[in-house]
Amino acid sequence: MKQSILIAALAATLLAGPVVAQQSPAQTIVALRDKALTDPVSWDLLESLTTEIGPRPAGSPAQMRARDWGLAKLRALGFQNVHAEEFPVTSWERGVEFAEVTTPFPQKLALLGLGGSISTPPGGIEAEIVVFKAYADLLAAPAGSLTGKIAVVTQKMVRAQDGSGYGAINAARRAGASEAARRGAVAYLVRSLSTDDTRLPHAGAMNYTAGVAKIPAAAISTPDADLLDNMVRRGKPVKVKLVLNSISRDNAPAWNVVGEIPGTKPDEIILVGGHLDSWDAGTGAIDDGAGIAITTAAAHLAGQPNKPRRTIRVVMFGAEEMDYSGAAYSAAHKAENIVLISESDNGGDNIWSVRLPPGGREVFAPLASVFAPLKINIAADVAVGGGDDIRPLITATGAPSFNFRQDASRYFDLHHSADDTLDKVDPKQLNQNVAAWAALLYLAANSDQSFRKAP
Amino acid sequence: MKQSILIAALAATLLAGPVVAQQSPAQTIVALRDKALTDPVSWDLLESLTTEIGPRPAGSPAQMRARDWGLAKLRALGFQNVHAEEFPVTSWERGVEFAEVTTPFPQKLALLGLGGSISTPPGGIEAEIVVFKAYADLLAAPAGSLTGKIAVVTQKMVRAQDGSGYGAINAARRAGASEAARRGAVAYLVRSLSTDDTRLPHAGAMNYTAGVAKIPAAAISTPDADLLDNMVRRGKPVKVKLVLNSISRDNAPAWNVVGEIPGTKPDEIILVGGHLDSWDAGTGAIDDGAGIAITTAAAHLAGQPNKPRRTIRVVMFGAEEMDYSGAAYSAAHKAENIVLISESDNGGDNIWSVRLPPGGREVFAPLASVFAPLKINIAADVAVGGGDDIRPLITATGAPSFNFRQDASRYFDLHHSADDTLDKVDPKQLNQNVAAWAALLYLAANSDQSFRKAP
Repeated sequence: MKQSILIAALAATLLAGPVVAQQSPAQTIVALRDKALTDPVSWDLLESLTTEIGPRPAGSPAQMRARDWGLAKLRALGFQNVHAEEFPVTSWERGVEFAEVTTPFPQKLALLGLGGSISTPPGGIEAEIVVFKAYADLLAAPAGSLTGKIAVVTQKMVRAQDGSGYGAINAARRAGASEAARRGAVAYLVRSLSTDDTRLPHAGAMNYTAGVAKIPAAAISTPDADLLDNMVRRGKPVKVKLVLNSISRDNAPAWNVVGEIPGTKPDEIILVGGHLDSWDAGTGAIDDGAGIAITTAAAHLAGQPNKPRRTIRVVMFGAEEMDYSGAAYSAAHKAENIVLISESDNGGDNIWSVRLPPGGREVFAPLASVFAPLKINIAADVAVGGGDDIRPLITATGAPSFNFRQDASRYFDLHHSADDTLDKVDPKQLNQNVAAWAALLYLAANSDQSFRKAP
Repeated sequence: MKQSILIAALAATLLAGPVVAQQSPAQTIVALRDKALTDPVSWDLLESLTTEIGPRPAGSPAQMRARDWGLAKLRALGFQNVHAEEFPVTSWERGVEFAEVTTPFPQKLALLGLGGSISTPPGGIEAEIVVFKAYADLLAAPAGSLTGKIAVVTQKMVRAQDGSGYGAINAARRAGASEAARRGAVAYLVRSLSTDDTRLPHAGAMNYTAGVAKIPAAAISTPDADLLDNMVRRGKPVKVKLVLNSISRDNAPAWNVVGEIPGTKPDEIILVGGHLDSWDAGTGAIDDGAGIAITTAAAHLAGQPNKPRRTIRVVMFGAEEMDYSGAAYSAAHKAENIVLISESDNGGDNIWSVRLPPGGREVFAPLASVFAPLKINIAADVAVGGGDDIRPLITATGAPSFNFRQDASRYFDLHHSADDTLDKVDPKQLNQNVAAWAALLYLAANSDQSFRKAP
């Protein structure tokens, strides 16, 4: 190294200390981003949650352990006002489940009862199946046409980067049982809302339509749906026997777990989070341990080293899968000043785009160049709404939101199935998320701009 | 079309009939290859077997249906001397199985008992686990060091095109229980011999060493092996509860199903086949419905249109997974003149190489150019032995063999698991196999050369 360069380097080093305080927001978030990319917090949280707690459906004993885990982790990371907020849920616990084709080609089927489904009689239900290759075909079936039958929908879910294949087929899981029951069916099976070909069914919640007979409902794995398609193609009646067993309890306790980094204007709240509950077959790594890990790690970074102007609040929602925690949280907090809100609930793969809130766009101007190396674009359209846990609060308060869009291409290979385990998460992609969240949170929390649409 | 070309085309068409009989072997196998590439027989067989029969362990009622299926299919394809040869097996039927970590991090584990394992007591076994990240570490553990413990081996299987990762780790499944028992263990768990990351365990047979206490043994899924690694890394004792239940029956009947295309020299036999039995979790598509489909379809093609010189015999072996059918077949047939033998038991993906028998190499000379478009090379080394079902006969008779080498890169993602289903098979790759087998069988069956090594 030449002497002159050495002197220049030394001078730069000596100047570094005092200069930090004078950093522009753009410089600060570059440093935050780069720190986040190797920050161990998100992975440690996710590894801990999946290993030490595992599956944690709302209302289960495991969710109580998850609550205590959340409180302990938030406290250990220096969050303040750490507490759990209790609310009631109708819990749903899976019991023994079994299904088989009994005739003409006896073999077992892999299935998971849908959350909220009633049980079959103890001896099960055995009936001929009627297979619909599209959900629309079931909806087009006339009244009485399924009397005494088990209705089966085998429509395939489409893989898409934005996960939109899920919304397109979701009604088949949510509402299919009541639609089948309206037409006389005694049970309902749906091809798993999955983009994978593993023989692991994907669970998920369903709802009964008021005034329609309740019938048991379950998801079969994608290879089992293919199998039933192939069996019925032969033209002989195919009978399936189905045993589903579950226990539902009203007024079971669940908890939203909360921690804050209080701002100098503590009543201006930026609310972020994921959900702590999970389905029961996997360990809830991508759904939604990843969202818990990303938002907690990002808030932790964005609140350092100086106290932010606004409060950053992390909420670990306690009953997303059965649709309780968002409403409970909104009911308790709708009078607060939520200046910005978002959640992470689409796995741990890379973010590819962000939709910003309608107001105060100049605050986020530095993000464009900071996000470019992360391969995140700033979407031309603004954020509208959010996921299930923040939508009620947005509806109640009009709080502005931002939406990070993650690559969901493989999310629905794993989601709601036994395959939702830690090994499916890429730590590098997880930290790409943390970097983006931390940079955005820092700018929002250290601003005094409104993000609402200008009147 | 010009008049002159039309006349030439007509002349070619008129000449086609008589010319066929004069075709060189090379011309015939080019035509056979190209016919095989769109021949529907292999896929139809595989779709039928997996759909109409499904899983079919030796000794089970399903295997009796598989036997009848095999007899009917061979007859329908015009095979002669179609019959089933009964032999006794010790059957092993899976019952209720369950495993969970009880402390310090309670959660369920996904496992399958290994074929041949004893049951646990009805209430199960609960004990602290000792995890070995390599099987060699278990073998290095001193006597008495596992007293009262559940031994767990979490060594990962290596993915390889030639499937050699399986042989390298197979002893951990086959012999691990007795090795653990020698050191005092009360049960044994092994990471599934799998190259995949799905939470589906892979079954397989195990054997007890004479004179060593028998302990229950099961395979856990690969994510569960990772989970146990992560749990024990925390340094606290980890306890697992294990319930395994199975029924074994001695002298259960099983069958090798046989069909022939008799040659003009009927006593010179070319024996090919796959195995009809399967593990119980999947539908036995790649293991070994594919081998049944490939060899049956290829023999069917190679025996047309003229009677071959030698007999082509297809054997659907009835108890490969528990190692019975090869020995039974050899005992019954070792006095016959088996001039060439091979089996297909590595799935349905493309063949990339063939090892030819040591003698009569000039017979197979046309294969080089016929195989080139199929991307199959002729290996420099000669065939030695074969798989489990033909090895006893080779040992007893010295029969020469050939070995098609299939791409096994993804075979061990699926093998022995619930994921072994029809949707995993690519019909085009299946027919690439049929084309190669048909061409080779045609040459061998219409030759009078010996394929034994010249003395």
